[in-house]
Amino acid sequence: MTVGVFGLGRFGSFWASLLSERFSVIAYDRDPDIKPPQRVRRVSLEALGNCPIVFLCVTIRAVPEVLQVIAPYLAKNTIIADTCSVKVLPGKWLLEYLPQETPILATHPMFGPESAKDGLEGLAIMIDPLRLDARQAQFWEDVFAGLGLTVVRMTCEEHDREAAYSQALTHFVGRSLYRIGLPETPIATRWYKKLHSVAKQCVRDSHVLFEDMQTLNPFAQEMRRRVVQGFIDTLQDLGDPSTQQLIQIDEKIREEPHDRCSE
Amino acid sequence: MTVGVFGLGRFGSFWASLLSERFSVIAYDRDPDIKPPQRVRRVSLEALGNCPIVFLCVTIRAVPEVLQVIAPYLAKNTIIADTCSVKVLPGKWLLEYLPQETPILATHPMFGPESAKDGLEGLAIMIDPLRLDARQAQFWEDVFAGLGLTVVRMTCEEHDREAAYSQALTHFVGRSLYRIGLPETPIATRWYKKLHSVAKQCVRDSHVLFEDMQTLNPFAQEMRRRVVQGFIDTLQDLGDPSTQQLIQIDEKIREEPHDRCSE
Repeated sequence: MTVGVFGLGRFGSFWASLLSERFSVIAYDRDPDIKPPQRVRRVSLEALGNCPIVFLCVTIRAVPEVLQVIAPYLAKNTIIADTCSVKVLPGKWLLEYLPQETPILATHPMFGPESAKDGLEGLAIMIDPLRLDARQAQFWEDVFAGLGLTVVRMTCEEHDREAAYSQALTHFVGRSLYRIGLPETPIATRWYKKLHSVAKQCVRDSHVLFEDMQTLNPFAQEMRRRVVQGFIDTLQDLGDPSTQQLIQIDEKIREEPHDRCSE
Repeated sequence: MTVGVFGLGRFGSFWASLLSERFSVIAYDRDPDIKPPQRVRRVSLEALGNCPIVFLCVTIRAVPEVLQVIAPYLAKNTIIADTCSVKVLPGKWLLEYLPQETPILATHPMFGPESAKDGLEGLAIMIDPLRLDARQAQFWEDVFAGLGLTVVRMTCEEHDREAAYSQALTHFVGRSLYRIGLPETPIATRWYKKLHSVAKQCVRDSHVLFEDMQTLNPFAQEMRRRVVQGFIDTLQDLGDPSTQQLIQIDEKIREEPHDRCSE
């Protein structure tokens, strides 16, 4: 069986490489200079659209454009599987921009090259068979389980609700701490070392992915509001004179939506 | 050799227990009902003041009062060693409230019962021989190293400057996140699990310790200002409309000192 990958960036190359341990993998990238991983063969859009499944490994914001690029080349039964870090909006785009008959599998591998470098055991992949028959959904669930992954079936909405914390919060906090320059010190505690490693890890992902996680997940704004509230409460405990101002910000965040989900 | 411990709270009991593996340990606590750990014998203040070294294991804010309580009972050569999580202010108090001839060793074991439960290897203890001859300082350095600890000699000021991050920042962030109720989810990433474990750990320590870390470390306020600045910058990246208000808070924090170091 041949598996297709659209996009050979950091995640796409990693994902293609992982799949190539089980399948014959072909890939497309609009950049002709990008070098595919070992065992992965670069092909044209025509060839990609003819294989049984194509995983989209592109930035979230690029999905609508990529769907319009690939749609004309899709064979009738080619499954399109996205791998986006948010799911509600890409799910809507998949159903909207793809031909009526194209089967659709929403997936989110909850890991990247860094967290997977010591093996896949204990790592999770979320799947939502948005438009896929039960037999094919089970087939892909078994494939992912066969790789050693924990497969979690949930709706795109459940995913975004939980990922607003498990992912968007982690990156929001990690990036905010990283930029103030957490020092290395011989008196680091075990817990500071953990926090430091989280901050260092978060900035390995692209800033575009970070922005998309924060602004294209419909639950991320509420998460940020709650994080600000958490800091307000802590500063209040400490009798910090700036608490009143933080409460005003909090009200501002409640009033003015600034994510792009509502655009 | 007999070692004394003043205070049998969570840390004092742990510390007394640890020392009892090498030394005969006697302890005092003002609460007559508190049960000492195995191998540790409760004694009067008179007996405690006569042993070669007494470790103070009390809340930071209690140090001035405790020093006044114990001072009249101290034998001429009894070393007083504090174990406070901040060092500049307790160091000043030790020099101020103890008799001129009392030898003083400032220490900060960078761990507690939780982080030490799998052994002491890789854990650090900071020491600053504030008023101690070189031979005795070396003796205690060797004792701590003999327990498997990494001994870090630095001044109390260096300690507080670095602990404002390695400790106060970790607890500031951990407590603020814990109170918003980080959810458990099957799609937790490796990094979210780490962040979650840090938040859960921070709230095991008492709220009094948390407050003292934040308000009695002369560098903690500047740390909190920088954390707020980090969030400002991140929200600014995201085009968040509340950025302007956060900048006002930041200016407020700069203007109005609200720690207790300057009292």
